Amino acid sequence: MRHRYIVKKIQYSVWDFIKGAHDAWSGWVCVLLVGVVTGCVAGVMDIGASWMTDLKLGICPQAFWLNREQCCWSSNETTFDSGNCSQWYTWPEIMGHSREGGFAYFVSFFFYTLWALFFAALSASLVKMFAPYACGSGIPEIKTILSGFIIRGYLGKWTLIVKSVGLMLSVSAGLCLGKEGPMVHIASCIGNIFSYLFPKYGKNEAKKREILSAAAAAGVSVAFGAPIGGVLFSLEEVSYYFPLKTLWRSFFCALIAAFVIRSINPFGNEHSVLFYVKYNEPWILFDLVPALALGILGGAIGTVFIKGNLYWCRFRKFSKLGHYPVTEVLTVTLITAVISYPNPYTRLNMSQLIYLLFSQCGISNSDDLCDYNRNFTNVNSAVEIAAAGPGVYRAIWLLILAFIVYLILTIFTFGMKVPCGLFIPSLCLGAIMGRIVGIGMEQLAYNYPEVWIFADECSKGGNCINPGLYAMIGACAVLGGVTRMTISLIVIMFELTGGVRYIVLLMAAAMTSKWVGDALGRQGIYDAHIALNGYPFLGKEEFAHTTLAADVMQPKRNETLSVITQDSMTIDDIVNLLKETEHNGYPVVVSKESQYLVGFVLRRDLNLAIENAKRMIDGISVMSVVYFTSATPAQSLGPPPLMLKKILDMAPITVTDQTPMETVVDMFRKLGLRQTLVTHNGRLLGVITKKDVLRHIKQMDNEDPNTVLFN
Amino acid sequence: MRHRYIVKKIQYSVWDFIKGAHDAWSGWVCVLLVGVVTGCVAGVMDIGASWMTDLKLGICPQAFWLNREQCCWSSNETTFDSGNCSQWYTWPEIMGHSREGGFAYFVSFFFYTLWALFFAALSASLVKMFAPYACGSGIPEIKTILSGFIIRGYLGKWTLIVKSVGLMLSVSAGLCLGKEGPMVHIASCIGNIFSYLFPKYGKNEAKKREILSAAAAAGVSVAFGAPIGGVLFSLEEVSYYFPLKTLWRSFFCALIAAFVIRSINPFGNEHSVLFYVKYNEPWILFDLVPALALGILGGAIGTVFIKGNLYWCRFRKFSKLGHYPVTEVLTVTLITAVISYPNPYTRLNMSQLIYLLFSQCGISNSDDLCDYNRNFTNVNSAVEIAAAGPGVYRAIWLLILAFIVYLILTIFTFGMKVPCGLFIPSLCLGAIMGRIVGIGMEQLAYNYPEVWIFADECSKGGNCINPGLYAMIGACAVLGGVTRMTISLIVIMFELTGGVRYIVLLMAAAMTSKWVGDALGRQGIYDAHIALNGYPFLGKEEFAHTTLAADVMQPKRNETLSVITQDSMTIDDIVNLLKETEHNGYPVVVSKESQYLVGFVLRRDLNLAIENAKRMIDGISVMSVVYFTSATPAQSLGPPPLMLKKILDMAPITVTDQTPMETVVDMFRKLGLRQTLVTHNGRLLGVITKKDVLRHIKQMDNEDPNTVLFN
Repeated sequence: MRHRYIVKKIQYSVWDFIKGAHDAWSGWVCVLLVGVVTGCVAGVMDIGASWMTDLKLGICPQAFWLNREQCCWSSNETTFDSGNCSQWYTWPEIMGHSREGGFAYFVSFFFYTLWALFFAALSASLVKMFAPYACGSGIPEIKTILSGFIIRGYLGKWTLIVKSVGLMLSVSAGLCLGKEGPMVHIASCIGNIFSYLFPKYGKNEAKKREILSAAAAAGVSVAFGAPIGGVLFSLEEVSYYFPLKTLWRSFFCALIAAFVIRSINPFGNEHSVLFYVKYNEPWILFDLVPALALGILGGAIGTVFIKGNLYWCRFRKFSKLGHYPVTEVLTVTLITAVISYPNPYTRLNMSQLIYLLFSQCGISNSDDLCDYNRNFTNVNSAVEIAAAGPGVYRAIWLLILAFIVYLILTIFTFGMKVPCGLFIPSLCLGAIMGRIVGIGMEQLAYNYPEVWIFADECSKGGNCINPGLYAMIGACAVLGGVTRMTISLIVIMFELTGGVRYIVLLMAAAMTSKWVGDALGRQGIYDAHIALNGYPFLGKEEFAHTTLAADVMQPKRNETLSVITQDSMTIDDIVNLLKETEHNGYPVVVSKESQYLVGFVLRRDLNLAIENAKRMIDGISVMSVVYFTSATPAQSLGPPPLMLKKILDMAPITVTDQTPMETVVDMFRKLGLRQTLVTHNGRLLGVITKKDVLRHIKQMDNEDPNTVLFN
Repeated sequence: MRHRYIVKKIQYSVWDFIKGAHDAWSGWVCVLLVGVVTGCVAGVMDIGASWMTDLKLGICPQAFWLNREQCCWSSNETTFDSGNCSQWYTWPEIMGHSREGGFAYFVSFFFYTLWALFFAALSASLVKMFAPYACGSGIPEIKTILSGFIIRGYLGKWTLIVKSVGLMLSVSAGLCLGKEGPMVHIASCIGNIFSYLFPKYGKNEAKKREILSAAAAAGVSVAFGAPIGGVLFSLEEVSYYFPLKTLWRSFFCALIAAFVIRSINPFGNEHSVLFYVKYNEPWILFDLVPALALGILGGAIGTVFIKGNLYWCRFRKFSKLGHYPVTEVLTVTLITAVISYPNPYTRLNMSQLIYLLFSQCGISNSDDLCDYNRNFTNVNSAVEIAAAGPGVYRAIWLLILAFIVYLILTIFTFGMKVPCGLFIPSLCLGAIMGRIVGIGMEQLAYNYPEVWIFADECSKGGNCINPGLYAMIGACAVLGGVTRMTISLIVIMFELTGGVRYIVLLMAAAMTSKWVGDALGRQGIYDAHIALNGYPFLGKEEFAHTTLAADVMQPKRNETLSVITQDSMTIDDIVNLLKETEHNGYPVVVSKESQYLVGFVLRRDLNLAIENAKRMIDGISVMSVVYFTSATPAQSLGPPPLMLKKILDMAPITVTDQTPMETVVDMFRKLGLRQTLVTHNGRLLGVITKKDVLRHIKQMDNEDPNTVLFN
């Protein structure tokens, strides 16, 4: 007996231990799962997108499920130029023609466009039919959700599936979009779904947001192979409340996701550093001047992009255009395909173009961009500056064209009803700008090497101006101008490129670009979209006005406040109050005359409690008095009383009527309040809800307070 | 006339504009100045420390102010081995002996020790005489200051001067210490001093803390050449409240400081990446296993270090030892010099040793560590694994000795009364450990290449196991174990080494090390020192108990609360109350009977107002009634009333007695409160001060609540 008892006890204590450990570790386990699944989803998407992108150019007849690179591997050819091999058939070849020639060009173009249109139409239709929330980048919405607003279904499983498939399709369609924003959304969906496995997180919105913050970090981590950048992006841009514990969890989640995608490693290439740059020379002091100039240009281009994009999105929202999302997507896809196919730089996908622009002209680089008049004597010799050949000038013209095309197309693309992000397009615009400026500087230094600013460095030989480095700085500046990120941007940039040595240059460009952008137009693209959609997002800026709580609270003078008394209202009174008003909750006071505050009760809880009481308690009637006190009322003749102390929140947050709104806004932000009660000498005067605060801020900034949506 | 008026108006408006801009930009200007000055101070310190370190070995007779490297430059010799040249005289040479031989060794050793003792004695005396606050790393104190506690003089100009000079001396003395913590302290002093130039920051403690956070970032930025790491260190480890605006300012401040030190660039070397590693091969999956093992070891070593160091610091604090700081410093310096001189690895300074351990054995590396049986056929060929020669085994034994010596010495050194940080010693310990493990793994892989875990990678040739990389991971793990940093640690690591490619490995080691450390002993070294010194620091951990505000508030049952009534107490009553009690402030209520809360008044303001009134207002006497209301009291016969509404804080933060302490702690932390008032149904019940909260937390954690200092 005793033995059995002890065994049982041990079993129990083991079980208790596991339960306790499960509770303590559930957060870590949850982010572990989120990281693993995010990594897997991203890996599958990478493989799929690469296959479909290659499908636009040709097919592997022996094994149609292989993309070009894999197809060529299986052929065991050791030399193949520009990725083509005999196993891989381009569409003209399939049709029985040769690879070269005018007709082949036309057939290639035709199939390219056809597939693009097909992918885009599929993506847009999926979004339209199954998950309207799956469109766009999703970051503005996730910011809003993390600030405490709930959008039902925004992070559901349908959104997850449609967004993953749709993103794969729209990337393959060759549209001007990236996958970073949507990857953050996808990761957040995964975070949301997994948090339901752990009651501690699934049932508590505040706790769930911690998981979502970590998931957002994993999203950037897999999209860019930038785990640290992801954590900082979540911290700086996405999250609202980011305690140290969340920092550690995000870090872990991003680590796991990065590790999983590296292990899957779809193509055997080095996903860990996406745009790895091989150069590593120290920069010269003079480089700082063009870096600042690129920062200014980046801020300006960012602002142009934001203004243009907002104008178009507003037009789409309020005109008929919004009713034909699929048509819009198809039109933009067609235009993109037609315009981008002839230009060799736009025909490359954006990531390849960025890689090309970031790289330094070496001995093996045969692109027009590297058509310099120089002789390499040795693989390891420094890349000296040299006179540009005609190819470079041709390349510059094509790049300027590409820049204009991409800028306009991206303005129209971002915000369409397909999953679309804007990191890669912004980086690409910036890289083009930076490369052009870089070539300009290089030629200047080559032609006037005696000018004192170049004299020190460029006369010695060795590498003094590197256009690839300028492309990197330009990319950083434009992305900074568009999103107004600072530190997360820098970290992402050097996780992408490995250019740790150039941190100071990148920082200078990012800081300038942020300042210029903030001076030209107040908000970054995500905040602008939040305002456009009217989400109730309480920004992190300081509230700089001198109004008091008394000016903002409801009700205004001459109106009465809906309150419940603690021991004198009947069920009937309360039901009537609930019918007449629409508030989410009601303050409970000692008596209507004294208005001394006792607590706060939620509408939902009241409704539920009254319904339950009517069903469960004998003798309860509409005339029963509702008590919010614990004292047992004296026996009286009427129907039995209803005791509701347990649904009363005895610890509502209160402020006095003389509290400056600056403090009130601060409390809303930091404590994540939904409402606060306003008192004077202990007496209840009114209520301030989050909606009141948001409207008041809009009003003080001379904007229309009615643009704020709620519910 | 009119013209003159307009001109004047324009002048005014220009002046107003400048004033407005100055106000808006003063924060940026302030951090700019802090960055510039921090960079300059760090540059000067680097130059000085390098000169003094070389002085221990010899002198440049032609120009004694040059260090060895500069001395050899001026001699124009192109070849000199191990940094020595004919212009540079070692001490035996000065004394007329040759460089080699037993006697020369003894003379060198003698001078080495003599100078070290001299530097250490000077440093300790300076600290003892002029600025007792200048000792230690300063990070625990800065954390406490940033959490809202004020330590007068801790960030003053004397501390700044003595800490800068003292740090230079104690680094030169060859003690087991680094300059990172003290650099953060120095930068914070600079931040504090410059904030007084801008009234907006100098007069507002909360605003000043924003400048201090930015300055802390600049401190790490110049100490390590790691601007991003500095910002993250300030965010993760040092700062308490870190809004986005502070993030951007810190970023800017760190950027400027990094730029200035790079421009000063004391020795023409590449300060921007301190321990730059040249290898860049992708890591193999198996590397993850030793990385995790190093993480575990790092966490364990960190804990051993913390426990040992705390034990010794406690002993110093409560024994006679604390009264002889200079003697203690001299003893430790002597022991350090005597023990470290014979071992070639400990004779190097720590930074050089770390650099050596991080590097890969190449064709030009002739150290014992690189005594492998392999032939390099080509400079660019991969470094294959090879059998270790006898030199490697000799090196391993010396490194193990060095590890033990450094671990013990650092435990005794950190906390002595000289400026001392522990980043470099921790990194050094970790690098030794990692290198040894790395060599072990390498030999394992070489001897058993057919084991499946190595089979894939190591059989192909090429670099499969790199002991230098392991040293880097080990360094990261031990520093993580000691400080419990995560993300800032990783960023600092790859700003130090440029090893962006190894992020996942570093992250795995840092995370494991943090977990192991947290499991073995709860606190990191800085938090442990805060607890040891009893600073009133409200940690960022969640409060996990279920107590209520009513359990914590003062007064307890049966005591009365000191309150002031709004319109019935005379000056005499108030003066008596101030004499009898020592509270920092008093709640003001409607009347003693009702206890309805009106506001809160500070002791300081009350004292001041009463004194002023006695001096300034005719007829005021001790019997004057003090009014905190705005209503004019009816004319009565007595002395004129004293109206004190303007010193009354009408917006005190209140909580109800049923509020869970979890919420209260959260409010204290996020809103930076010093006290909160506890009410029930509008009636005042008591007060909770920060001290009460800190004591309550200690009590709940079963620690002695009386260890918390206050004032």
